[in-house]
Amino acid sequence: MIKFFEKDPYAPIQYVYDVSEVLYQKKSKFQDILVIQNPYFGKMLILDGVVQITERDEFFYHEMLVHPLMHAHPSPQNVIVIGGGDGGTVREVVKHETVKKVFFIEIDEDVIETSKRFFPSVACSVDDKRVEIKCMDGAEFVKSRQGDIDIVIVDSTDIIGFAKSLFTVEFFKNVKDCLTDEGMFVTLSESLHFHKEMVVEVQESMKLIFPIVDLYSANIATYAGNWWTFSCASKKHSLRDIKRPVTVDTKIYSEEIHHQAFLPKTFYERLMKGKLAW
Amino acid sequence: MIKFFEKDPYAPIQYVYDVSEVLYQKKSKFQDILVIQNPYFGKMLILDGVVQITERDEFFYHEMLVHPLMHAHPSPQNVIVIGGGDGGTVREVVKHETVKKVFFIEIDEDVIETSKRFFPSVACSVDDKRVEIKCMDGAEFVKSRQGDIDIVIVDSTDIIGFAKSLFTVEFFKNVKDCLTDEGMFVTLSESLHFHKEMVVEVQESMKLIFPIVDLYSANIATYAGNWWTFSCASKKHSLRDIKRPVTVDTKIYSEEIHHQAFLPKTFYERLMKGKLAW
Repeated sequence: MIKFFEKDPYAPIQYVYDVSEVLYQKKSKFQDILVIQNPYFGKMLILDGVVQITERDEFFYHEMLVHPLMHAHPSPQNVIVIGGGDGGTVREVVKHETVKKVFFIEIDEDVIETSKRFFPSVACSVDDKRVEIKCMDGAEFVKSRQGDIDIVIVDSTDIIGFAKSLFTVEFFKNVKDCLTDEGMFVTLSESLHFHKEMVVEVQESMKLIFPIVDLYSANIATYAGNWWTFSCASKKHSLRDIKRPVTVDTKIYSEEIHHQAFLPKTFYERLMKGKLAW
Repeated sequence: MIKFFEKDPYAPIQYVYDVSEVLYQKKSKFQDILVIQNPYFGKMLILDGVVQITERDEFFYHEMLVHPLMHAHPSPQNVIVIGGGDGGTVREVVKHETVKKVFFIEIDEDVIETSKRFFPSVACSVDDKRVEIKCMDGAEFVKSRQGDIDIVIVDSTDIIGFAKSLFTVEFFKNVKDCLTDEGMFVTLSESLHFHKEMVVEVQESMKLIFPIVDLYSANIATYAGNWWTFSCASKKHSLRDIKRPVTVDTKIYSEEIHHQAFLPKTFYERLMKGKLAW
């Protein structure tokens, strides 16, 4: 059996996958793109040696990245998705009928093309007429908008590497400025098991900019550390409360999962004070 | 760098760990025992090629196996711990001052000895005067007790292999018979990501025997599948409600974690009906 050894320098456990077939390999302008077939997870998209999505379990990440904020906002119409070239995040966003416009900002157009070819069930909405694709740096794009965006979603690769510019205080400030007064923002922020200092750092940076900052988590089998966090911020509304009934079709997200996903308050305080003992 | 490749035939991802040092290897009467040193997790206990505990993160599993039921019970005095030769489960049980007697039933005394030698912070309570160690089959031991046990805790290796006898309807019946009218029972039941059919099977078997059956989960980094489940049952009291204030010293368990850990009701129903789409 051919094996794929994940290459994540920040994970203390290395994940190894069986490879039934190597379907595609390309060195794009930004990263190494690899598509493999695995007997359990189906097709897998790997960027610079790190698993991004698998056919079998991609919905955990995409649904939990998108739907909490989309339901905490009273009426999300204009959305920016930064990264997420596979299209899974865009697919979840356009499920919401309130949405009129999605700016889909992916720096590497080769990822979008690879996903269209190998992951049609994930990339299925990138050609939706409400979606405008721009292949550019998301940090640059947010500077071009002022006060008209309802939700900004960052769906990047890990915080290290060229995605770093999406986790600076300056970027968070520019995100805030592009949002309406009811605007919201969400980004991945790594694992509570392995990278809790990074989680705290992202939270603290967001708090310098936004009046409301929160944290929720989901369990994702194919991201090392698994106990994956999503850092979110808001200018006006609580992110824990749901403003609209859940009518979109989902596999894992629901109103009860929304409420369960947010960190309990004392636990959150202990995390932020560096008092979690691992 | 020397590597340890975990050998779990039921996990679709293989976990690989760096080995700073191989500290101990022995073929006991029942299994292969291995102790390694890892740069991140510290010492690791491995049985038949599967990671059982690591110094760094063992408390996630031990606290979440023990404390939910110990707090759902009004006054747990007599407890049976089956398996858990490392002693971590016993350590958590004897933190409760209500406890008068712990029957610690581990089939493989070599595991207890290995833990005492290499994991003193885990095995620290196995010589507590309330603890009676018996090196025998736990399924046999429960048959010897009738109606005087408050809580039975199964802390076994995976459901496959020689631990199989701890997951039969017959065993659950014998557990019920050894419990008082207020008695409770908890056992690991594998991963919601990778083994949800097994979770459902354990739940269904328990429901044949007990009037109250429930399910909670915790995220454990070093067990493949990570989204680890605990199946629990009770003769009288709800398992979701806490009967006594949390005064024991813990790293992860708390009243709010207790409530968050149980599966939300609709989600649980979907699991049991086979309607979860992964």
